[in-house]
Amino acid sequence: MVSKNYYDVTKWDKGDPFQDIGEVINSILTDIKERQKKSDENEGGKPGAVIYIPPGDYHLKTQVIIDISFLKIEGSGHGFTSSSIRFNVPKNEWSNLHELWPGGSRILVDLPESEKGEAARAAFYVNRSGDPRISSVEFSNFCIDGLHFIADGSNETNPENTYTNGKTGIYGASPNDSFRITEMGFVYLEHAITLYHADALTIHDNFIAECGNCIELRGWGQASKVTDNLIGAGFKGYSIYAENFGGLLVTANNIFPRGASSVYFDGVTRSLITNNRLHAFYPGMVVLDKNSSENLISSNHFLHDNEPWAPLQGRDNGLDYTFGLLSINGNSNTVIGNHFSESINPNKISPKGAIPVIIRVVAGKENYISNNHIIATKAEVISSESCFSAQVEALLTTDSAESLEVKTVLIEKQSVGNTVLDSGSEKQVELDKKVNAFRATPIPNMGSMSN
Amino acid sequence: MVSKNYYDVTKWDKGDPFQDIGEVINSILTDIKERQKKSDENEGGKPGAVIYIPPGDYHLKTQVIIDISFLKIEGSGHGFTSSSIRFNVPKNEWSNLHELWPGGSRILVDLPESEKGEAARAAFYVNRSGDPRISSVEFSNFCIDGLHFIADGSNETNPENTYTNGKTGIYGASPNDSFRITEMGFVYLEHAITLYHADALTIHDNFIAECGNCIELRGWGQASKVTDNLIGAGFKGYSIYAENFGGLLVTANNIFPRGASSVYFDGVTRSLITNNRLHAFYPGMVVLDKNSSENLISSNHFLHDNEPWAPLQGRDNGLDYTFGLLSINGNSNTVIGNHFSESINPNKISPKGAIPVIIRVVAGKENYISNNHIIATKAEVISSESCFSAQVEALLTTDSAESLEVKTVLIEKQSVGNTVLDSGSEKQVELDKKVNAFRATPIPNMGSMSN
Amino acid sequence: MVSKNYYDVTKWDKGDPFQDIGEVINSILTDIKERQKKSDENEGGKPGAVIYIPPGDYHLKTQVIIDISFLKIEGSGHGFTSSSIRFNVPKNEWSNLHELWPGGSRILVDLPESEKGEAARAAFYVNRSGDPRISSVEFSNFCIDGLHFIADGSNETNPENTYTNGKTGIYGASPNDSFRITEMGFVYLEHAITLYHADALTIHDNFIAECGNCIELRGWGQASKVTDNLIGAGFKGYSIYAENFGGLLVTANNIFPRGASSVYFDGVTRSLITNNRLHAFYPGMVVLDKNSSENLISSNHFLHDNEPWAPLQGRDNGLDYTFGLLSINGNSNTVIGNHFSESINPNKISPKGAIPVIIRVVAGKENYISNNHIIATKAEVISSESCFSAQVEALLTTDSAESLEVKTVLIEKQSVGNTVLDSGSEKQVELDKKVNAFRATPIPNMGSMSN
Repeated sequence: MVSKNYYDVTKWDKGDPFQDIGEVINSILTDIKERQKKSDENEGGKPGAVIYIPPGDYHLKTQVIIDISFLKIEGSGHGFTSSSIRFNVPKNEWSNLHELWPGGSRILVDLPESEKGEAARAAFYVNRSGDPRISSVEFSNFCIDGLHFIADGSNETNPENTYTNGKTGIYGASPNDSFRITEMGFVYLEHAITLYHADALTIHDNFIAECGNCIELRGWGQASKVTDNLIGAGFKGYSIYAENFGGLLVTANNIFPRGASSVYFDGVTRSLITNNRLHAFYPGMVVLDKNSSENLISSNHFLHDNEPWAPLQGRDNGLDYTFGLLSINGNSNTVIGNHFSESINPNKISPKGAIPVIIRVVAGKENYISNNHIIATKAEVISSESCFSAQVEALLTTDSAESLEVKTVLIEKQSVGNTVLDSGSEKQVELDKKVNAFRATPIPNMGSMSN
Repeated sequence: MVSKNYYDVTKWDKGDPFQDIGEVINSILTDIKERQKKSDENEGGKPGAVIYIPPGDYHLKTQVIIDISFLKIEGSGHGFTSSSIRFNVPKNEWSNLHELWPGGSRILVDLPESEKGEAARAAFYVNRSGDPRISSVEFSNFCIDGLHFIADGSNETNPENTYTNGKTGIYGASPNDSFRITEMGFVYLEHAITLYHADALTIHDNFIAECGNCIELRGWGQASKVTDNLIGAGFKGYSIYAENFGGLLVTANNIFPRGASSVYFDGVTRSLITNNRLHAFYPGMVVLDKNSSENLISSNHFLHDNEPWAPLQGRDNGLDYTFGLLSINGNSNTVIGNHFSESINPNKISPKGAIPVIIRVVAGKENYISNNHIIATKAEVISSESCFSAQVEALLTTDSAESLEVKTVLIEKQSVGNTVLDSGSEKQVELDKKVNAFRATPIPNMGSMSN
Repeated sequence: MVSKNYYDVTKWDKGDPFQDIGEVINSILTDIKERQKKSDENEGGKPGAVIYIPPGDYHLKTQVIIDISFLKIEGSGHGFTSSSIRFNVPKNEWSNLHELWPGGSRILVDLPESEKGEAARAAFYVNRSGDPRISSVEFSNFCIDGLHFIADGSNETNPENTYTNGKTGIYGASPNDSFRITEMGFVYLEHAITLYHADALTIHDNFIAECGNCIELRGWGQASKVTDNLIGAGFKGYSIYAENFGGLLVTANNIFPRGASSVYFDGVTRSLITNNRLHAFYPGMVVLDKNSSENLISSNHFLHDNEPWAPLQGRDNGLDYTFGLLSINGNSNTVIGNHFSESINPNKISPKGAIPVIIRVVAGKENYISNNHIIATKAEVISSESCFSAQVEALLTTDSAESLEVKTVLIEKQSVGNTVLDSGSEKQVELDKKVNAFRATPIPNMGSMSN
């Protein structure tokens, strides 16, 4: 050990990290607190520590409880591999597989089922009352694996496809400042990251996939960033959710299916969803709900197509195609310069025969919707046992596709003072022109090329 | 030690890193230079080294002087916590606080006050003359803490609120190439990062706050990136400043108050300010000065509101509300797709009764200002002793706000050939239509919803 | 060694990493595979490992062959310095230079010339057949140096300027998932990174320059990100190339000269090129070829000027100035909110007297080109022996420049149903209005300021 503040879980003399890394880390935390008892007026005294997790399989049977600032937990490998694909390979083929499980510096979440609730079943539980808020806890470059999903009473025939197991990766309960979650892998957790009351949070460059829900910022919070992540929740959950948040920057993420939504804002203000790649199998990709206002949604690429992977076809998020790929309930938002690809099989449209809606203002005033380009085409539904090749095939299928009629923008009746510019033709945009402003995207002089 | 080129400051046999880490690192640098004397024609010979700083409190009484390439200095914790909040807690409550100071791998900058000037009071001073330019110096994941601000002759009653102490974190004097500053924490420094003559610089994913000035790129430079940082300077200083720079990419930053400006460009060309969250308490948030030209400012979210935290209310940057949230002195810039929220108390407007200006072209031709959405509302001033809750409360207050009259765009008289599209109504945009092009944002047919 | 899954190449008992790090790493890989033979149904068993490369000069004479998942190879220094500048310094001045070579944790690629082909001459060759795809291989913070370019039969007088040596940094042959390449340095390789069949790939925050080609994503792939890199290929090669890819996010990169292209897409769909700084010395900066469709190109800054550095003046990519800075062959793409600076010497235009084209749709329907701002000016050609100061001087020269006539948008005749809005005047945009939609950028009432 190079310093008393540098710990390696495999070198610590209490507990066996391979049997229960939770016990080991808690014991290390006790040691840190015993050594760093006082912060004096002139210098410091509580610098915290780093806990290193080398690559390996570490069962976690005891919840790690973090109540000190300046703690970094770091591994050497985010270790993601698709458990979802493997759990849908017939078991008699498993012996042919190179490996069965995620890897890297991997925590196997084995918390007892007797514990109930998101917080109690969290591998890492962060909570401290009093002042100051707990600060600068960092998680970096290790893997948190929930191992299995379980039967949940639904009609899923394969329990590993339920996205349900009551397990959480990281749960923050108390107000916190300057946390960092970077280069991590999360897989097969019902909730990957749940943080209440975050300030100046960084969630950057992680791989968070095949989790029921990926990122949930709850309670309230401000001035944070969720950037440059690969993210994809299960069909029932959130990829990114935020609640009563101000000044959240969601950018440069590649959010792939199959979340019930890609980004969901409840009462979020003055925040950005910019410059993301968003791909989903259901409507309601981005939802601004509960009076989310003064947000900027720009330079995103939205793709909605149908699930091509056989084992998960037939699931959905229950929303009709009239819900909108982008749905807004709030005021003074800016929606500009986004590309939307709606590439779906007409038979999948619900309710039957409905005209799909792309951007929908459910309620709100002074939203500014400008220069969005919407492409809607009819697609065959691909069905394949191979997840990767099916998705690539679907993605690359744009040629000679027939146009599909959509409402590019729908401003619902109770909404006034909104502005819609160059985001669709007269026919494609529906709004009350007496109380909203509209300029149609120009069409060729002949008028024959554009609907 | 795993290699002669891997150093741990706590294992080095000369000096005591806790007493003076500067002396220790300089001694290590001497060792590297003695061992790596020659670069031969066929192979290499001067690969540099890494110096590791485990979590701990390390006083720095001697300036570190870096004059070799390929040096990495790395810690295990950026260690930010708010010193500003704590210094505004009454001292008799300090004993109730969990901790008083920043932490992680923390450098306490204790340079003697006898040294004067930004360069002399820098914790890390980088300088090398001759060729080639010094290259690939990397700073990663440690904390540089200036400890205290001091009385500066102003009327600040709490000297810890002055943002003045003459201390610098990292200072680069000579032309440099391919430097990296990542995952660092900077706090309570008058200047966090000052670099002259940078080429291909990366300042990425840092936490730079409660510093007089955060990032200053001086002299001239090119082809660099300032990305994905959390940044917030003091009320007198720069959050991001660049001078005579070409090809600077400022993106994905969350720049919070209370800098005198968020981004300030002096003579900067062909650069980008895109996709940032910008929040400030004063006008002059983004300034393009001294003929800054051919820059792109797009997809940013600007929020200007009033300081809600009692201890720092009453400070400002001295600019009138007619200065512009975005002020441009230069040619051929592109300003497109930005959202502006001006949410202020009318009584705070200076000069009294003035109409605030959002985008202002002071002088310049052929600027292209298009599709910006400006929301201006009257706000109550919140005043709270709690910094976090006050800011969140202010951020979330958008409801039922009354409109505030603003000039969304003002093109000053000496400016010609500029184009303003869909960025405000006839009444909101002021320019000479004889020499500038204008298209008003459409308003509803009834004309009653929009001013 | 802190764990059996943590390896330090300088501590391994087989081979000498300074003589042949390839042999050492292959020996370590054998050890990992011998120890991690089985993945059992309940737990794991194959977590992989991390291999650490401290700063130093490591010759690689044997190719590293990676066929296991969850392998991280990590150094402590990306070690870039400009070899190109140094190889153009007269040899009699070399003894005055501080150092001659790149550094950090540096691999010197010394593979025998008897091996032929991109794959055989790759320092790191990744390949595994069967299922699952190889996953979570990570490369981080070391340098791969190809050392020298060689004479290639062209008329380059200095063989070090050919960008040819047959060497590759990282080559992935088989389908792969969740790979990470971060904080690396690549220099003087003919191909830095070549990956076939990538899924959920992260190429983030690297320095990839002075390579024949930088990033090549071949075969097909999906859902990946190339973000926040500093990139610059040689004059014959690709900076970023992708083929048959869906859902690729190319953002926040600073791509400097002198690649034959900055970003080249062949048959790429539903992908983004957003928010990048792009600088090139030749036309054809961004090319969407072979029916690349439904992509979003927004908020980028394009700069095309002439090579100012004497040793490399006279090279080009063979394209005429009528090719377009952005050239599109495909459907339904969105091009919005980009800034283009064309700053060239009229005498450099080819063919002589031609009018340069900025955005060109070679073939395609339903492309949406809106709110792009094009600045074209005549420039002197600077010629300097100093690369850095020449480039900075060129970058900063925007003042009092005379306008240059360009076609801001050209829609070729076979293209129909495209929309061009606010991206140039009637004179600057050429398209068949009968089959494409057009709205000219407004000009001042006087009509005298704009062409």
